[in-house]
This record gives sequence, C-alpha cells and structure tokens, in this order.
Amino acid sequence: MKPSGLSVTLALSALVVSVQAESLLEKVRAQRVAHEQEVIAEYQEFLRLPNVGSDREAARRNAEFIVAMMKRRGIAGELLEGKTAATNPAVFGEIKTPGATRTVVFYAHYDGQPVNPRQWAAGLDPWQPVFLTAPAERGGKIIEAWKPGDAINPDWRISGRSAADDKAGVFCILNAYDALVKSGARSTVNVKFFFEGEEEMGSTHLGELLELHREKVKSDLWIICDGPRHVSGRKVVDFGVRGDVNMDLTVYAAKRPLHSGNYGNWAPNPALRLVTLLASMKDDHGRVLIPGFYDDYVQFSETEKLAIKEASFTDAQLMEELGLKEPEVPGRSLLEGFELPTLNINGIASANVGRVAANVIPTSARATLDLRLVLGTDWRRQVGRVTAHIRAQGWQVIDHEPTDAERAQFAKLIKIETGAGYNAQRTPMNLPIAQAVVAAVQSTSTEPVIKLPTAGGSLPLIVIEETLGAKVVTVPAVNYDNNQHAENENVQVRFLWEGIETFAALMTMP
Amino acid sequence: MKPSGLSVTLALSALVVSVQAESLLEKVRAQRVAHEQEVIAEYQEFLRLPNVGSDREAARRNAEFIVAMMKRRGIAGELLEGKTAATNPAVFGEIKTPGATRTVVFYAHYDGQPVNPRQWAAGLDPWQPVFLTAPAERGGKIIEAWKPGDAINPDWRISGRSAADDKAGVFCILNAYDALVKSGARSTVNVKFFFEGEEEMGSTHLGELLELHREKVKSDLWIICDGPRHVSGRKVVDFGVRGDVNMDLTVYAAKRPLHSGNYGNWAPNPALRLVTLLASMKDDHGRVLIPGFYDDYVQFSETEKLAIKEASFTDAQLMEELGLKEPEVPGRSLLEGFELPTLNINGIASANVGRVAANVIPTSARATLDLRLVLGTDWRRQVGRVTAHIRAQGWQVIDHEPTDAERAQFAKLIKIETGAGYNAQRTPMNLPIAQAVVAAVQSTSTEPVIKLPTAGGSLPLIVIEETLGAKVVTVPAVNYDNNQHAENENVQVRFLWEGIETFAALMTMP
Repeated sequence: MKPSGLSVTLALSALVVSVQAESLLEKVRAQRVAHEQEVIAEYQEFLRLPNVGSDREAARRNAEFIVAMMKRRGIAGELLEGKTAATNPAVFGEIKTPGATRTVVFYAHYDGQPVNPRQWAAGLDPWQPVFLTAPAERGGKIIEAWKPGDAINPDWRISGRSAADDKAGVFCILNAYDALVKSGARSTVNVKFFFEGEEEMGSTHLGELLELHREKVKSDLWIICDGPRHVSGRKVVDFGVRGDVNMDLTVYAAKRPLHSGNYGNWAPNPALRLVTLLASMKDDHGRVLIPGFYDDYVQFSETEKLAIKEASFTDAQLMEELGLKEPEVPGRSLLEGFELPTLNINGIASANVGRVAANVIPTSARATLDLRLVLGTDWRRQVGRVTAHIRAQGWQVIDHEPTDAERAQFAKLIKIETGAGYNAQRTPMNLPIAQAVVAAVQSTSTEPVIKLPTAGGSLPLIVIEETLGAKVVTVPAVNYDNNQHAENENVQVRFLWEGIETFAALMTMP
Repeated sequence: MKPSGLSVTLALSALVVSVQAESLLEKVRAQRVAHEQEVIAEYQEFLRLPNVGSDREAARRNAEFIVAMMKRRGIAGELLEGKTAATNPAVFGEIKTPGATRTVVFYAHYDGQPVNPRQWAAGLDPWQPVFLTAPAERGGKIIEAWKPGDAINPDWRISGRSAADDKAGVFCILNAYDALVKSGARSTVNVKFFFEGEEEMGSTHLGELLELHREKVKSDLWIICDGPRHVSGRKVVDFGVRGDVNMDLTVYAAKRPLHSGNYGNWAPNPALRLVTLLASMKDDHGRVLIPGFYDDYVQFSETEKLAIKEASFTDAQLMEELGLKEPEVPGRSLLEGFELPTLNINGIASANVGRVAANVIPTSARATLDLRLVLGTDWRRQVGRVTAHIRAQGWQVIDHEPTDAERAQFAKLIKIETGAGYNAQRTPMNLPIAQAVVAAVQSTSTEPVIKLPTAGGSLPLIVIEETLGAKVVTVPAVNYDNNQHAENENVQVRFLWEGIETFAALMTMP
C-alpha cells in the first residue's frame, strides 16, 4: 500500500481514536453479548414482516415495528408522512447531545426488493428467517435444532428478504445506540434516525419527504448504512454512490400464441426481435454500443484512482468463488468499472423454457434493464439515448399495450416503461468530516479500512445533498456474499455484531 | 382457381361420391344430433384427465379411458405396450370388413403439450373444460349457466389442454365409427384404430411400437387426424408433415446472482451473452444465418406449388386477426414458408422481468429452440449445424451443469440438450389412394377441399412410412384458432361435429 498524504493523515487520526475508544468498544461489545438473544429474537420478528414497498400496508407495518423498536430503546420515534397516502412513511427519531457541534443523520431503509419465493432454496422462505451454516448456494444447512436461548454461532447466516439489505442497517443503528446507552456512554453528536420505506422503489418520494420535514432532518452529515463490506471482509467507507434507473421493454408479435410449425417462417417471433435489439446494445467485450452512452462521465481523480487501486486485491479470489474464468472486460478490475455507467439485463422472459416449453411462437417478449449512473451522467439523458437507439433500429416506441390501429401501422412495436431514476453522488474524500468518519470506523478494526470514491450500488443520496446541502457518506455493515436483491438473501451474524460496534463508534466520533 | 389436370380429376370424383354419399351423411348427422349430449359429457370427462406424456401414470389413465370409450362402441380396444415401462402405451383396435380390399389405420394421439396453468386466462383451467362464447383472447366468456341437457351452441368453444390437439382426433374417429354403426351403415375398408401417447414428446417409441406390433398395424394407408383445418374454415388434406427437433440452451455466468450495481461492468451477464448468441442465428428478415441451414431442402414440385398457390388466399385476413402488419418475410405467403426448415425461439428466460424484476446479474439464461425439418433436411445434421455455429461463436459446449474445473477453464459455457427428433414426410399428391381420400373429404363439404403438399406442423409420419411401407395422409378436424400447444387451447364445437362426418366418409370411401 503506497501511502498518500491523505492516507497518512487518516492512519494517524485512526491510531489516536483507537487508543481513546478502546474501552468504549469493549463496553459496547459486552452489552451486545449480554443482550444478543433479545436482539436476535426481535430481528427475526422484524424479518417476518413482508416489506416489498409496493405493498403499502405491509410497508407501514414495518415502519410501525421500527417505532416500537425505538420506544424500547428510549427513542421517541415517529412516522414522517408524505403528501399523499401513496408514500410509505419514513421513520424518524432524534437524540440531542448537549454541547454537540455536529448533527448526524443515521440512515437505513426498511423496504426490500421483490421476491419470487419459488427461486429460493429448499426450506428457505423469504419471510421466515432461519439460521444457516453457510449460504444456500455453498451447501448451507438450516440449523433445525436451534431454539431461543441456545448459543448463536457468529459464523451462521440469518436468511430472509432484507436480512442484509437493509433491515440490517436498522438493526445496527438502533442496537448501536442502545449498547452505547446501556454502557453508560453517550453520543458526541446530535443523533438523528431516518429509516426510509421506498429505497428499492427508487426513493421517488424521498425529496418530497425531506422538503416537507426539512427542519427535522437538518444536519451536517448523513451516514448511510447500506450495501456490503469489502470482499476481503474489511470495513469500508464509501464516499459516493451510483445513480440508477430501470427500463422495462416489451415487444409484441401476434395477439395469440401460435403453433411454431403452422406459423413458423411467417409470423414474426418477438423473442428473436427482442434478442436482436438487446444484442445491438452491448458488445461481447462489455462495451455499450448506444451512441453517447459514455459521453458525460467524470473520470476518477488521482486520489480516487489511488484509493481504488489500494482496494483492488480480491478480484482473483472473487472470480474463483463465483466460478468465473474472466471478468466481462479482461484486465479491468471490479472497482475500476465503478467509474463507468452500466447497462445490465436484469431479466428476460418470453413464453416458457425447458421442460414446460411448448412449440409456440410467443405473443410478446420482455426484458428489464438496469442503468447505473455515475458522476456526470444524467438519468433522463441516458434513458433518452437508449430510447433513441431503439428507435434507430426501426422500432415504434409506445407506452401502453398496442392498439389494433398501431398493430396495423407498425411492424415493430415496443412498449418502454421507465422507472423514476436519480443521479450519482460523490463526496470529496478529503473533507474533515469525512476523515472523522474514516477514523471512527478504523477505531473498531485492526485491519485498514477500505475507502471507496464510490460504491457500485445506488442510493438516492444526491437528493439529500441537493435538498439539504448535507454531506453524505456510506458505511456498509453486511457481508459481501449476502445475495441482496436475489433469492437466498442472508446476513452473517458476525457482521451484525461488528456493525453495532461500527455505529457506536460513529455516534461517539470526536 | 386455375384448374390443373389433377384438380379436375379430383373435382369429378368428388361430385360422384357426393351424390352417392349424401344420404349416409344425413344419417350420420342425425345420429350425432341424437347423441350429442352423451358424447360431449364423455369428452369433458376425457379432457379432465391430465395428459402430459412425461407423467406416465396420467398417460396410462388416458389410454385406459380410450379403451373404455371403444368398448362402449363395440370395439375391442387393447393397449400396445413398448419394450419397457418407459413407453406410454398406444391404444389399438380393429374392425374387419368382409370383402374390403384396403386396410386403413385411423390415427390420433392422446397426449398433450406441457401446460403452465398460470398463463391461462382467468377462470380457465387446463384440466377443467368449460364452454366459452369465443376464444379467451377475443373476449370469450365462460357459459356459467350451462348444465348437462341444455342445448349446445355449435359456435361455442370447449377449453382445455388437448381439447383440439389431439383428443379431438380420438373424438372424431371413434364417434364417426359409432355414428356409422348406429346409422346401420358399415365401413367399406378394414378399419384399424391407433391412438399414440407420446406424440408431443417426439414419438420416440413409435417406431419400436410399430416393429413390435407389426402384424396388427399392417395396412395400406394411415389417415392422421391432427392439426387445424384451413384459416378459411375449409376442409384440408395434408400430403406431408414437417419433421421436428428441440434444442434447449443454457448459458452460465456467476454461481450466485449478483447485485447489478456492486458487480456491474465486471461480472459477465448470461442474458446478454445468450441474446448475442441467438441474434447471431437469424437475421431481421427471417433468414437463418447458420452455415448450411438451407443446403438440403427439396423444393416444392410444380404440382405442389400450384396447390400452395390455390390455398394462399387468407394471409391478409390472418394478419389482421393476429394484429400483425406484415409477415416475417414480406412477400412470402404463410404456405410458401412451409417449403423451408425453421428455427424458432419457443421461449427464453433469465431471472425475472417487470414488477418482480430485481437489479441483479442473473446466474444463467436459457432458451428453447424448435427446429422444423422439411423433405431433404435431416434432424441430426441440422442439430449439428446449430451446434457448430455455437462453437464457432467461442462457446464451450457441455451436456451437464458446469463443473468448477470447466468454469475455471472456459469463459463461455453452454449446455445444449437436444430432444429426440424425426424427419419430414411427404406423400405424392397423385396416388389413387390419396385421391380417394380427397374425394371422401370433399363428399362432406360444399366448399372445395384444400390440398396441401405439407402441413406446417410435425408428426412422426416418416416412421410409419419407413417401418411399415404404408402411405400416410393427414385430415385435420379442428378450427385453426385453437391455441394448440399454448394457453387457452380450445376447440369449436362445430368442428367436432364436422369431424365426425369427415371420418365417417373416410371409413366408407370407395
């Protein structure tokens, strides 16, 4: 690791904090050990609440559960409502610290990604958390014999939707505060809690909520607990996030499914047309071919490049673990790719495959795309480029099921549905408050903290920066192999324990 | 319609038969009217038996049901077993006609295509037949109020898997024989019944069954009742069928689903790789780009081209009905395309789309292909060409889930699973026995019968021709808009009634 001016400064301040905080860290750990049965029982109850944000009643039950969690910890939690009932409430709470000069909002989100329960491994239910010996994909077994009161092995995983993303954030923040209080310690900053309920839906109402409750959420810094720690297991501070927008494409052919023999060589096949379109978007070497796609992005600074380089030492291990011979772009590291916008096929579907496939020409074919934005790229402009590219391939773009008149007029009809997007955000790595965060996290770990100019994932942090003028950094808590957004999501227990320590340190940062 | 020598001959003989057979046709119709409640009740019971061929116990229940149907009609039905228990039995029966010079096997199949019940319209269950006012796609409503004994409107549809393909064949053949007997008439040919149970699985054991029971199934002609009548509603005689083979392709990427932000621009996306591969197989103009794909096919003869031309008058109507602006190859008619082999994408799948899509890089992507063969193309050779094309795109072809060693060695891994295929078959249109079939069908209709050199669909008729040396023609019974092989399969009642008349005429052909 080649030291830069910045990293020397951080290393020195980390050392100082480390000595000062040692006994607090031990006290927090002792509190956690004393209460781990209770907090795990409460967490399992939390995970049993379905939390797909589009189910507004379910979402509200999660918000109310968090208010109850806060009450048990002596925090007066409240729901921040949006302008209309079509907004899942955020959960807010505040602890004022006499003499504090900084106000820090601790953020996590309680909603989760949609689930397809049939894709989960045998015995796993997204809404029935269980302990596993290892991830399901690596042969993890359910600990059938465990019952409340039995020892909890920190190597075990807890399964369930949002076990990692991002109920774990709520867990770490609230239990960190609780452990601090029970240790007889107190926070050094004014602590605010903000738990969002629409993050996985694109945080469409976050800006509105911040505007409506501007005075309450006023602060110097937001610390986001979301996303995974580094592949190496080291702790991480992310100084930015990518933006995100989804596009859903549906192409149409005959109104009814057709026998592939009786109509083959005559009726257009929508799956063929869709694959041809998608194949035109990106080449075999991972380069997006859509005109203008890479025009706007801001390259990493030298400091950012150095930080990326220091953190890029686990690609080979990761490839082996994932069963990959080489990355999409051989020679480019995982983290180097974070500099660029992405175009990803999240899923594709037309009729059926395999054992349930029939010899038909399908009626339609559908793909969902995920576009990640980086500093400089604007989501509306990027969507416009994809749409222009589709039009340039001869497609008539519509935003609804085609009418008979449209079917008669256009041979190639595509419905494009675009979600609400948001842009990327990056906080400069050399701000004093950012360095204080790194030092606090470092005080809880014997291994060097990894500093990333941007995470690969997305959070609507740009909204916070633009609406409130507050700085934003992200401190992830969970294991990297958590299957977030997918089937068999899990969190390793030790990462929950370490997350409590991390956030207790952040609440007591100098 | 420009008369050829052949069609003049057929028209004359049709006229003669028409005059002779008129009273028989009326008698058959009267019998059907008298018994329609019973036969529909029995048919509904038949359709309630799941008949996906891979469920061998379910298949056998269908075969036994047919034996019971035959017994009720005075036919001694029996099961023809294969060499092993892994063969669904065929159902056989025989009626000898003193003095008859021809022996005709009447064929249908009782197994059906796989179903995905969730794709069926609201209220429709593949195994619970109901009457519909129209196809579900065209706003058809379930006749909720109908009860046994109520009049049955011949315009109604009966829904259900195999309502058209091909339990309707069993229905028409057995009820035609029954109506003949009840009319006091008798067949003019030796009638044999052969109902197969593995047609939708590629008829893998048909050759074996024919070999094992060669003496029983010996005959001059097989008449196949399968597939749809012409789009115009006119009756059809098909002189051939296409061959068929399926290929199932699965491409692999990371072993576990990955967050599209944290791993985007680094982990290969299997959906992108699959669409790129599929797009390389066929161009936007319907031409297959795989080297050699069109090398072997036998072009239509002048007689066959003329027959095709005479039947090609409904494409515009069909396009309007299907909501299509133009066919895959503008300027080429539906029936002209029957001359060529096909490559169709039956379905494609990777992760999820739309509301349940998540921002992930999937672990695998899968497509099922259907290759139709025509006279001259061999299914094994065609599969070899597709496989060679895939290899030429840099893919390592395997026949199993990839091992860790294979994952480490090859960047592009694809599993190819090929079903059992069979080749096309065509009977010359000018054989006397073929002309007798046309005349018999013509005797039941006031509109000219359509003669097709080949159907678009596939049946394993080549096995019959090669194993037994018998000629083969196909006489379809059902409406063309029956959704065979797909969700919402249906048969229009009037086609069942007319099928009885067609097959009664065929059993009494001179």
